[in-house]
Amino acid sequence: MITINEMAKLVNGTVTGDGTVRIKGISSSDYAVEGDITFAVNEESLRKAEKSKASCVMVLREEANYPKTTVRVEDIKLAMTILYNAMAELLPTQEGKVHPTSILGKNVKTGKNVVIEPFAVIGENVHLGENVRIGAACNIGNTVRIGNNVQVYPNVTIYDNVVIHNNVTIHSGTVIGADGFGYVPMNGKTYKVPQLGTVIIEDNVEVGANVCIDRGTFKNTIIGKGTKIDNLVQVAHNVELGENIMVAAQTGIAGSTKVGENTLIGGQVGISDNISVGKNVKIGAKTGVHGSLRDDVTVWGYPYRKAAETKKLHALLSLFLKNMKKIRKLLREIPD
Amino acid sequence: MITINEMAKLVNGTVTGDGTVRIKGISSSDYAVEGDITFAVNEESLRKAEKSKASCVMVLREEANYPKTTVRVEDIKLAMTILYNAMAELLPTQEGKVHPTSILGKNVKTGKNVVIEPFAVIGENVHLGENVRIGAACNIGNTVRIGNNVQVYPNVTIYDNVVIHNNVTIHSGTVIGADGFGYVPMNGKTYKVPQLGTVIIEDNVEVGANVCIDRGTFKNTIIGKGTKIDNLVQVAHNVELGENIMVAAQTGIAGSTKVGENTLIGGQVGISDNISVGKNVKIGAKTGVHGSLRDDVTVWGYPYRKAAETKKLHALLSLFLKNMKKIRKLLREIPD
Amino acid sequence: MITINEMAKLVNGTVTGDGTVRIKGISSSDYAVEGDITFAVNEESLRKAEKSKASCVMVLREEANYPKTTVRVEDIKLAMTILYNAMAELLPTQEGKVHPTSILGKNVKTGKNVVIEPFAVIGENVHLGENVRIGAACNIGNTVRIGNNVQVYPNVTIYDNVVIHNNVTIHSGTVIGADGFGYVPMNGKTYKVPQLGTVIIEDNVEVGANVCIDRGTFKNTIIGKGTKIDNLVQVAHNVELGENIMVAAQTGIAGSTKVGENTLIGGQVGISDNISVGKNVKIGAKTGVHGSLRDDVTVWGYPYRKAAETKKLHALLSLFLKNMKKIRKLLREIPD
Repeated sequence: MITINEMAKLVNGTVTGDGTVRIKGISSSDYAVEGDITFAVNEESLRKAEKSKASCVMVLREEANYPKTTVRVEDIKLAMTILYNAMAELLPTQEGKVHPTSILGKNVKTGKNVVIEPFAVIGENVHLGENVRIGAACNIGNTVRIGNNVQVYPNVTIYDNVVIHNNVTIHSGTVIGADGFGYVPMNGKTYKVPQLGTVIIEDNVEVGANVCIDRGTFKNTIIGKGTKIDNLVQVAHNVELGENIMVAAQTGIAGSTKVGENTLIGGQVGISDNISVGKNVKIGAKTGVHGSLRDDVTVWGYPYRKAAETKKLHALLSLFLKNMKKIRKLLREIPD
Repeated sequence: MITINEMAKLVNGTVTGDGTVRIKGISSSDYAVEGDITFAVNEESLRKAEKSKASCVMVLREEANYPKTTVRVEDIKLAMTILYNAMAELLPTQEGKVHPTSILGKNVKTGKNVVIEPFAVIGENVHLGENVRIGAACNIGNTVRIGNNVQVYPNVTIYDNVVIHNNVTIHSGTVIGADGFGYVPMNGKTYKVPQLGTVIIEDNVEVGANVCIDRGTFKNTIIGKGTKIDNLVQVAHNVELGENIMVAAQTGIAGSTKVGENTLIGGQVGISDNISVGKNVKIGAKTGVHGSLRDDVTVWGYPYRKAAETKKLHALLSLFLKNMKKIRKLLREIPD
Repeated sequence: MITINEMAKLVNGTVTGDGTVRIKGISSSDYAVEGDITFAVNEESLRKAEKSKASCVMVLREEANYPKTTVRVEDIKLAMTILYNAMAELLPTQEGKVHPTSILGKNVKTGKNVVIEPFAVIGENVHLGENVRIGAACNIGNTVRIGNNVQVYPNVTIYDNVVIHNNVTIHSGTVIGADGFGYVPMNGKTYKVPQLGTVIIEDNVEVGANVCIDRGTFKNTIIGKGTKIDNLVQVAHNVELGENIMVAAQTGIAGSTKVGENTLIGGQVGISDNISVGKNVKIGAKTGVHGSLRDDVTVWGYPYRKAAETKKLHALLSLFLKNMKKIRKLLREIPD
């Protein structure tokens, strides 16, 4: 718990009302209970927040006369973000509880405050660190290693041997460690290539819903520290994502490709197999990257070019469209 | 139950045979039981339907001599559609049954004729209306509200606070209410933006399989009345879809974007964040929409243009390809 | 079990050490137990394999002096693939076991050596062949037919009536047989078209994770023998995929389209509805195919062209970019 005054300090805000009240949670007005802080960004939400049970409302600096205790700030999204992350560390850790319907294999080791929800199935020789939550109907394969402060939402499937470090969140429907897509055609038949590697997910990674991260073939698929992956993303076998990468929804990264740190990848991007994308790269939405990219470049388009070139090209194509008659005439007039 | 004569009236059809027989269900010949109506669209299916246990066969108007009772119509697909929707309203409601292996939290309220399948987990303070079915191994979060006549197929995950109105169908593997993809980079670290809103799904919505609809950040993600969403679609945080929109498979709609009523969105379309798409808009498959669109326009391409312009552009590019030598020569000849 | 000498014969390899030892499994060094064969492709993995518990290491031909028993080969990936497929046939079949928490409907018939994992729900009148494994929390609908040697990973949903032949693998999160996306607008309302067909998956198919294969409308959706489908792929209603097709991740095939045998489809490809793609076709990643394709063609681009044409076009566009000033000048100079 944290007082309103302490909160205001964190977010560079000004308290109006009783700043000594202790706050237990953050929520929207619709679901706020006593002890919560909520927020209000416009007239409608100001009225909602006023009627809510929240003990404190975060409002814009100029909202001077408000009937509830407020913390007034410049930027509500930023302030709420700071507060949310600070409170995540201050909140009491969950109480451990293994639901009686969950099934744990032989030699499962669990740290303090582990919650295993109903109908979760945990394989043999699995290690779960402290403050881990395994959601309902999750399936955790044999010999999986999960660190501390990891939340796995319901209906997630983690195949054998996958390694997950600390402070990782995995949303529902996601599948980690399924076989990579590898076949060798031989004598008119198609032979499956064994997928013997695993997946390693480093600290502070968040993985969205219905994501697929395939296990490696002969080495491992790696998701670097701090990298964030949005929904419905495909990460193929042997891919190595560096640190602090952002991957927006529905993007696919094909087999054995490496991506450097701090790179930003837009939605529905496709990155070919066996290439290398540098660090600090920016890739616009829907781009098709079929060659390696140096550090610090910004690319866009299908096929990809430097974003500035793609913009020029699109302008040129618009010019062509405007001058279509001229162009047709010109081409007719040039002798073969 | 409905007689064959009553059915024929609904679909503007002609009965051959005993029209007083009562029909209980619709199915394909392979799975038809006595009391079912089936359909036959070609020679092969006519023979199959003849051998099936179906009590009646819907056939084309010209199929005069058929050894089973028939309803003869102009357009089988349309007639079956009318019949299917009419019978959905006529069929007796399901008998309520909460499977003993399902787990219901505190203060769960359920209406009449609620079916909860095995291993479903329902959180605290959840309200389920009448004639609701929650599939096996579904996970329904705390304080979720579900209206009447809602079917949730197995293995669906619905996060806390999500609101679902009436006559909604949600297919398997879908995740509703997971956290939106929001982070603020600050002092070399990446802070997660709290996702405090929820998802509201209005009446008569159907959501396909393995879809993701993220919860809102500070407000709600909204799916308007009558909107239909195909498989593997991404709907990001704060998106507002209007009424009667069709979203084909694998399309992604980025954060805070609004789409107007009756808009048709093809497959694998990407729509950028924070833009506004009008009503009655048509967006061709694979289009990348990165700017707002006025009502009634038809767009196609990546980047998007009016569909007619994109077609012209593609024709022009084909012309360029045919005249490549000429063009290369021309460009060489022009002085710098 | 198979001796190291027998293995070497299969992969055209040379044994160094005791070739009479029997091998029970294949794994990476990290997880190898006594009786396993592992592999080593570089210095690091050679050292790891040396320290591992593996009884034998597959190494490159030139790796003459290695302190463990080795099979030396030209191509490790190929050799491991041959070995993996051979051992799959040699390994003892699993011991049948129906977990007591799983729920089987009336008239479920199971062959020898069927494993049903915890919390799986099997509908009525389901037939499972020999050596089938149904993963945890899977939901198998009524009247589903599954052949021999089929593995269904956890959290898969298979709707009513789906038919799966022999030697099929289905990865987690996949949904087979959900309703196709079909609606008829009529009198200002949207009517759902009944989806009365089913899905048939023929022999030797592998389906990745979080894939959607919709049931047919009035006929069946068919996945032909030997076809392999990667993660997050959409196969719409009535689609017929021929034999030995490869479909890479995140590709979508729209309703009623047919694809011929041996066709290779890259990632994030979109194929329109109601068209026909020939056999032995190659479709590059991210291609948008909106017309039928003859046998043996290679296409790429959005919109699609023959790949060679698309490459020429992209080169031409690059030339335009380099000569932008000239082009603008030229267009200004041509009279309207």
